[in-house]
Amino acid sequence: MSANRDELSPLALLRRSAQAYPDRVAVRDGDRTLSFAALAERAWRLGNALRQLGVGPEERVAMLSLNRAELLEAHFGVPAGRAALCAINTRLAPPEVRFIVGHCGAQVLLLDPELEAAAGQALELPGLRVVRLGHEYEALLESAATTPPDWPDSEDRPISVDYTSGTTGTPKGVVYTHRGAYLGAFAGLVETHLGPEGTYLWTLPMFHCNGWCFSWGVAGVGATSVVLRRPEPAAVWRELRAGATHLCAAPTVLITLFAHADAAPLDHIVTCVVGGAPPSPTLIERGEALGIRLTHLYGLTETYGPASVAAWPPEWDALPAEERAVRRARQGVPTVLGGEIDVWDAEGAPVPRDGSTMGEVVVRGNTVMAGYLDDAEATSEAFRGGWFHSGDAAVVHPDGRIELRDRFKDVIVSGGENISTIEVEQALARHPAVLDCAVVGVPHDHWGERPKAFVELRPGAEATAEELTAFCREQLAGFKCPDSVEYVSLPRTATGKVQKFVLREREWAGRERRVN
Amino acid sequence: MSANRDELSPLALLRRSAQAYPDRVAVRDGDRTLSFAALAERAWRLGNALRQLGVGPEERVAMLSLNRAELLEAHFGVPAGRAALCAINTRLAPPEVRFIVGHCGAQVLLLDPELEAAAGQALELPGLRVVRLGHEYEALLESAATTPPDWPDSEDRPISVDYTSGTTGTPKGVVYTHRGAYLGAFAGLVETHLGPEGTYLWTLPMFHCNGWCFSWGVAGVGATSVVLRRPEPAAVWRELRAGATHLCAAPTVLITLFAHADAAPLDHIVTCVVGGAPPSPTLIERGEALGIRLTHLYGLTETYGPASVAAWPPEWDALPAEERAVRRARQGVPTVLGGEIDVWDAEGAPVPRDGSTMGEVVVRGNTVMAGYLDDAEATSEAFRGGWFHSGDAAVVHPDGRIELRDRFKDVIVSGGENISTIEVEQALARHPAVLDCAVVGVPHDHWGERPKAFVELRPGAEATAEELTAFCREQLAGFKCPDSVEYVSLPRTATGKVQKFVLREREWAGRERRVN
Repeated sequence: MSANRDELSPLALLRRSAQAYPDRVAVRDGDRTLSFAALAERAWRLGNALRQLGVGPEERVAMLSLNRAELLEAHFGVPAGRAALCAINTRLAPPEVRFIVGHCGAQVLLLDPELEAAAGQALELPGLRVVRLGHEYEALLESAATTPPDWPDSEDRPISVDYTSGTTGTPKGVVYTHRGAYLGAFAGLVETHLGPEGTYLWTLPMFHCNGWCFSWGVAGVGATSVVLRRPEPAAVWRELRAGATHLCAAPTVLITLFAHADAAPLDHIVTCVVGGAPPSPTLIERGEALGIRLTHLYGLTETYGPASVAAWPPEWDALPAEERAVRRARQGVPTVLGGEIDVWDAEGAPVPRDGSTMGEVVVRGNTVMAGYLDDAEATSEAFRGGWFHSGDAAVVHPDGRIELRDRFKDVIVSGGENISTIEVEQALARHPAVLDCAVVGVPHDHWGERPKAFVELRPGAEATAEELTAFCREQLAGFKCPDSVEYVSLPRTATGKVQKFVLREREWAGRERRVN
Repeated sequence: MSANRDELSPLALLRRSAQAYPDRVAVRDGDRTLSFAALAERAWRLGNALRQLGVGPEERVAMLSLNRAELLEAHFGVPAGRAALCAINTRLAPPEVRFIVGHCGAQVLLLDPELEAAAGQALELPGLRVVRLGHEYEALLESAATTPPDWPDSEDRPISVDYTSGTTGTPKGVVYTHRGAYLGAFAGLVETHLGPEGTYLWTLPMFHCNGWCFSWGVAGVGATSVVLRRPEPAAVWRELRAGATHLCAAPTVLITLFAHADAAPLDHIVTCVVGGAPPSPTLIERGEALGIRLTHLYGLTETYGPASVAAWPPEWDALPAEERAVRRARQGVPTVLGGEIDVWDAEGAPVPRDGSTMGEVVVRGNTVMAGYLDDAEATSEAFRGGWFHSGDAAVVHPDGRIELRDRFKDVIVSGGENISTIEVEQALARHPAVLDCAVVGVPHDHWGERPKAFVELRPGAEATAEELTAFCREQLAGFKCPDSVEYVSLPRTATGKVQKFVLREREWAGRERRVN
C-alpha cells in the first residue's frame, strides 16, 4: 500500500458507496431492501465466509441464480474473498451447468433454490460444497466476520469467469480482471450518466458479462438497483412508471416490452442500453416515442460486454427520425474507456472506410479479457496480431464508424443469447439416425435469429423433427434447440466439407445484412 | 502493445473524441472554433514539433498562457511529444515565473504574448527556446507532421508538473502521471455527469491542477470547451445564458459572480464545481436560487485537484435549504475514483468521528501525486505513514464525512477552546452587508488568543462592528465571536485566495511565537 497507488478494483466502489450513501437503498428485490451499508457488510461477510470454507486465492466460486440481491452482493463478496465469481447462465440444461461447474474447478456453488433442477447433475460433482440461497446462505453469512477485505495484491487478478458459447462446441471461460471490471464499470456509467439519483432496473441477467459490468457500476455510484427475477413486461412497465431511470436489454426484450398492453409514453426520460444484437431502426423509433432513449452498445463476453457505442453528437438530434434511427443502429466507435476497434481483412490489414468492404471486427484495450480459462491455444488464436478477433463481420463507414453485417464464426445470436451451431450439430449427431447435419441461423422477427437444422439421415433410418428436437433438449438449453428441421443432401466442397454458407445464403436471400 | 492492455493515458480521450465527434466544436475561443478533428491534428503536430526541437522523454515544456485554445491543446500535445506540461500560474510575478521555468528545467517555453511582462526574467534563462503563441507557434505546428503519438511505454510516466502557490518557502513542482490524470479526468466527469451534450465554461484557469483535470476530461467526452481569458462576471453570465452547462470556480469567483448586476435566475440547471476553499452555506443558497447547483469538491494540487466531494444522496433534496447548504459545504467523502481520505491526530491515529476533534486531513489513492519534482525529502515528508499529508485541519462527522475547519496554523486557541476561523467566517458571510471576510487569531493577555474579523462590505452596504458581532452571537457560542472588526480590502494571493497569514503577521508583529 502506498500513498499514490491503489490497485484498481470494483471493491473500491462498494467501499465508497457504503461510506458516501450508507442509508440509501442499494438493492430492492421484491419486498426486501438493502442499504449500501448492509450490502457492503453482507459482501464482506461473504468474502470472509468463503475464506473460512477454504476457498483460496483466484479459485472460482460458481453461482447459479436468477437476478437476486444475493447475486449482486456476490459480485463484491466473492472477490472480497480473493476468489473469482463464475455466474452461470440460468437457461442452460443440466449437462451444460455440470460442464461449467466442473471446468471452472469450483469447490463452492451458490445455488438459487428455484434452479435446483438445472443444477441437478452438477450436484453430483465430487467435493462440491453447495450453499442454497435462503437459510443456508444466511447462516453462512452469520458465521463470518464483517471485516472489510484485504486489497487484491494486483489489479490484474481475476475477478470473474464468464462462460461463452464458443465456435468449438464447448463453452469457454472468459476471465475478467479487477482492472478491466473497474474500467468497464465506468464505461457504462459515463455513457449513461448514471449517478446516485438514478434507479437501475435489472432486466438484463446479471450472469451476462456480469450485467455488462453494471453489477459493479450501479452500486459504485450510489444508484439503487431494482431487481427483477425475469424481465416480465408488466413488471418492467410498473417499475418504469414508478421512476426507474436506467436499464439494459437485448432487442428481443424490448420488442416484447414495447408491444405490451401496458406500453405508453413515460413522464420521464429512461436511458436504455441496448446490446446483444443490433436494434432495428423501427425499435429505436418506437423507444423514442415512449420516452425510452436507446444507447446502442456492441460487444461480446470477451470485451466485458460493451466494446463500442453509437456515440451521439447532440447535433444529430436535429436529423429526421429515420436517419437518427439508422445512425443509432450502427455499432459506432469504442466506448469512452474502451481502447481501439477496427475491421481487418483476412491478411490483418484494415479494410477501406467505404461502408461496403467487409472484414472482421477486432478490438484491443483494457476491457478485453485476460484470456480463456485453461485454454492457452484458444487465447492465442483469438489474440493473433495483438488484437482480439470477434468473429463478427462489419464494414467501416467513411466517418470511421463500424456497422455489423455478418458473422464469420458459427454463432447464432437469439434473444441476446449466443448459440454455437457446432454445439447443436454435435448434439444432433449423437442421434443414431443422423448421418450428418448442419445448423445455421435464420432470421426471426422476434428473436432476431433462430437455429435451423439441415439433416442427412442414415440410409434406411428415420427420425421426425419432433424426435430430433426433443433429443436436443435433453442435452442443451431450450433456446439452443432448432425451431425447424429440414431433411436434405448437404452441399459439400470437393474435399467433402459441408458448405454451411450455401445454406445460410438461401435462408437470408434478399436481405442486406446477415445478422438480425 | 497487447490485445488486453493499454497504458492509461488522457491521450486516449482525444484520440477517441476525434474519431467519435470529428466535426463537433471542441473549443470556442472568442471568434475562433476548433473541431475535435482539428484539435487532435494540432495536438499531434505540437507533439511532433517538440520532438523535432529536441525535447526528450519526460522533459518539461513550460507554458505561460491565459486560458486559450492553445493551452487546452498543449494538455494533449505536450504529452504526445512524450514530455510533461508545466502550465504556470499567470498571476505570478516575474521572479516567480523565472524560478519555476528554471526549476522544472524546461528548454521550451510556450508564451502567451499578453504575458510578455510576467515572463520577462525567465526569457533571460540560458538555452531557453521561447515560442510565442500566434505566428511563431502556428509556424512551428505547420512544420510538423500530423502523425498520432507513440503511446507512453508506461502509464506511470509524468504528464504534467504543477507548481504549488507556496504560501511559505519556494514553490514545489507536483508531478502528475498519465494514469492519475486519466482517472482524475473521469472523477470529474462522473461527479458532474458531463457528456457530449454539455458545454463547459472555462472560468477556472487551466493552470490550476490542469483545470482540476477537466482540461483532459471535457475534450474526452466530446463536450465543447468555451474559453474565457479571465472570469469576468459579465462574460460569464453571457455564456451561461447562451447555454453553458458546466463550470468550475473558487468561492471568491462565485461571490463576485453572484453579486454582479447581471445575476438573475437561469432557465437551465448549471452544474458548478466549487473548490479551492470551503464555500459558505450562504454562497450555496444563493447559487441554488440562480439555478447554479454547486458540487463542492475539496482537494489540493497534490491530489490532482479534487480529492473529496460532498456526495449528495438525492433524499437530501428534501431537507430545508439551510440544512442542505450546511451539508453541501462539508468536504465529504473521496471522489468516486479517488482512494481513501481520513483525519489523523499528531500520532497518525484516526480522530474520533465526533464532529469536533480536529486532526490533519490525509489522502491516499491513484489521484495522489507521484511526488515533488527533484525533492525527495519533501515527498517523503508529505507521504509519511503511507498517506499524503494535506496540512489542512478537519473533523470527521459521525457519518464519516470530513469537514475542514482550518489550516493548522489558523486554528485559534482561546481559553483552552479551539475556534475554527472558517466557522466564524461563514457566520459573518451570512450577513447581507458582508461581501467577503477573514478571521485570524490575535494575541490576548487574558484568553491567549482571540478572533479578529477583517471585513469587506458590499458596495453601498453598511454594518457596524457591534451589529456584526451581535449577528455572530445569534449563531455561535460567545467565545467564538470576534472581539473586534476591521474594514479592509482583503489581501489576496495571485490565485485569489485571501492571504490570512498577511493579516496574522501584522497582528503578531514583534512577537517570537504565533501562539499565545
